[in-house]
Amino acid sequence: MLHVTYDEAVAAMTAGLLRYLPEDKARRFAEIFAGNSLDGVYSHGMNRYPRYLSDMDKGLCDRTVTQAERVSGFGALEVWDAHFGVGPLIAEQVTCRAIDLAREHGIACVALRNNSHWLRAGRYGLMMADAGMMGICFTNTCMNLVAYGTTEPSTGNNPITLAVPRRAGSLVMDMAVSQYAFGKLEIMAQEGKMLDTPCGYDTEGNLTCDPREINRSKLMMPMALWKGSALSIMLDLMAASLSLGRTSLDIGRPGDGEKGMSQVFICLNPAAVVDAGEMDAQIERTVAFLSALPPKDGVHGVHAPGENLAATRQRNLREGIPVTEETWQKITDAAKG
Amino acid sequence: MLHVTYDEAVAAMTAGLLRYLPEDKARRFAEIFAGNSLDGVYSHGMNRYPRYLSDMDKGLCDRTVTQAERVSGFGALEVWDAHFGVGPLIAEQVTCRAIDLAREHGIACVALRNNSHWLRAGRYGLMMADAGMMGICFTNTCMNLVAYGTTEPSTGNNPITLAVPRRAGSLVMDMAVSQYAFGKLEIMAQEGKMLDTPCGYDTEGNLTCDPREINRSKLMMPMALWKGSALSIMLDLMAASLSLGRTSLDIGRPGDGEKGMSQVFICLNPAAVVDAGEMDAQIERTVAFLSALPPKDGVHGVHAPGENLAATRQRNLREGIPVTEETWQKITDAAKG
Repeated sequence: MLHVTYDEAVAAMTAGLLRYLPEDKARRFAEIFAGNSLDGVYSHGMNRYPRYLSDMDKGLCDRTVTQAERVSGFGALEVWDAHFGVGPLIAEQVTCRAIDLAREHGIACVALRNNSHWLRAGRYGLMMADAGMMGICFTNTCMNLVAYGTTEPSTGNNPITLAVPRRAGSLVMDMAVSQYAFGKLEIMAQEGKMLDTPCGYDTEGNLTCDPREINRSKLMMPMALWKGSALSIMLDLMAASLSLGRTSLDIGRPGDGEKGMSQVFICLNPAAVVDAGEMDAQIERTVAFLSALPPKDGVHGVHAPGENLAATRQRNLREGIPVTEETWQKITDAAKG
Repeated sequence: MLHVTYDEAVAAMTAGLLRYLPEDKARRFAEIFAGNSLDGVYSHGMNRYPRYLSDMDKGLCDRTVTQAERVSGFGALEVWDAHFGVGPLIAEQVTCRAIDLAREHGIACVALRNNSHWLRAGRYGLMMADAGMMGICFTNTCMNLVAYGTTEPSTGNNPITLAVPRRAGSLVMDMAVSQYAFGKLEIMAQEGKMLDTPCGYDTEGNLTCDPREINRSKLMMPMALWKGSALSIMLDLMAASLSLGRTSLDIGRPGDGEKGMSQVFICLNPAAVVDAGEMDAQIERTVAFLSALPPKDGVHGVHAPGENLAATRQRNLREGIPVTEETWQKITDAAKG
């Protein structure tokens, strides 16, 4: 594992992106990749950079489109179309729009259709929370999971983020509706570890905790069996309906190339209706209570979601961002053009 | 198991509630209990009636308060205070308010503090969906679960509902953040059945699928281990912060008497920004796709959440609502005063 500084990472990725994007957009996109890794979300940061370049090469993502277009609106609810453009740049654009609308109306929602992969859900919730807002954002995906009750690919892992503003550092939950990321499952399979909870079927169709079996069958389920399945289906329907964009069914199976997701950005402005100081004090009481809980053996106690983000960011700024040699090689190769 | 008609059920419960409430409120409250059972949500319908009478007897719920008071508002975001009044009546009141605000602004949110138990989350989502809206509603609860990473009661099962309008019958997901209801766990323990997925610790602190062990330890966890824990914590913080109401920590442990919950009612008006017919056709495609999936052995295929609700309601209208003799006895006893 290498450690590279945030500035080195941004410079190298900006250089590679200049083949695709104008300079300001290239730099911002590089900052997003590096920023996600800086925050400790390595699975949706720099390691996704090579794949995103390839998506732009293949036309899965249209690099000529870096802004969404407003399709319709009524008060605090708007529909925008990303026209298959550069996902994270467009997601940031409509996040800013949702924040502006929430400042005006107290709550707002932008429903976005035809966007490319937005990388890290939590980024958009965090942007809202850092602006003093609460966020509820979710996206659909291709049908990378089997719904509980069948063995056919049928629903997405539809990541969702919930974010709450906090003076000492915003809180943010960022999770896919699957129990494990596919990458994590592969690592556990290689290490011969068993899962804590069954999250897929084996090739015989039995629930299993063995990641090797799920890797073989490709039959991963949503978390919590029927509950995660229901959540996944509803998030997909809400995102696609609000934006009149693609459903998971339209996006297709993983092999089809994941193109044109439907995404929802709901933003609430609590400071408009309650005292922000009182709210912060109340949040702090729960955070302190959770931190003080006796940890169960082998697990590092309980933390509010995102509570450790600021410390991770500081450590990575100080010591450099950890990145595999393979990923860094690809990034520096792309920079040479 | 007895079967009683909806009208019999409403009449009997109205009679008992007249000792607590004026006639119009008594009848509406009885319709809510009976309606929830009619829809097949037996766990949050007539069987909760005796407990709710007892909550009013004990003053846990203030029967003299049947309307919430508006505390503050900004555009489409409002805070209301229920003053520990009659939960489901007040939840219906603010649901109607959220629908009215969403008609005006495209999206709206009412944050409600100090409400009593609202019975069934799905009712409020369904009210929105039946009005052509989408709904996102959630409540916090007392700390009836242990968060992943500790063995102390520390978070709630915070039910959430997501609802989508549909001409053939609104879709609604209604779920607590625990894998199993406590009642279901008890039934499975009595039947000697094992759980499909570990959802609590045994008395030694190990993850277990044995419901008898969890009944002994009382250490039930949120669904999906760390994922459900994060979701539960965030829902609590959002509900309590937006309303400046009680957190799960304030509400306390189950033995404390669950009093004064914080609840959120978000309502979206998709028909204001997209064509309702196109939206309906799109939802129908996913519903049809899910229904046509090959069912895995022993499980009845996949359905969109709430898809079977209308059929259940029709059956219960035709054949009567199933109710245990014990519950019906309590209802008829209360009717005699």
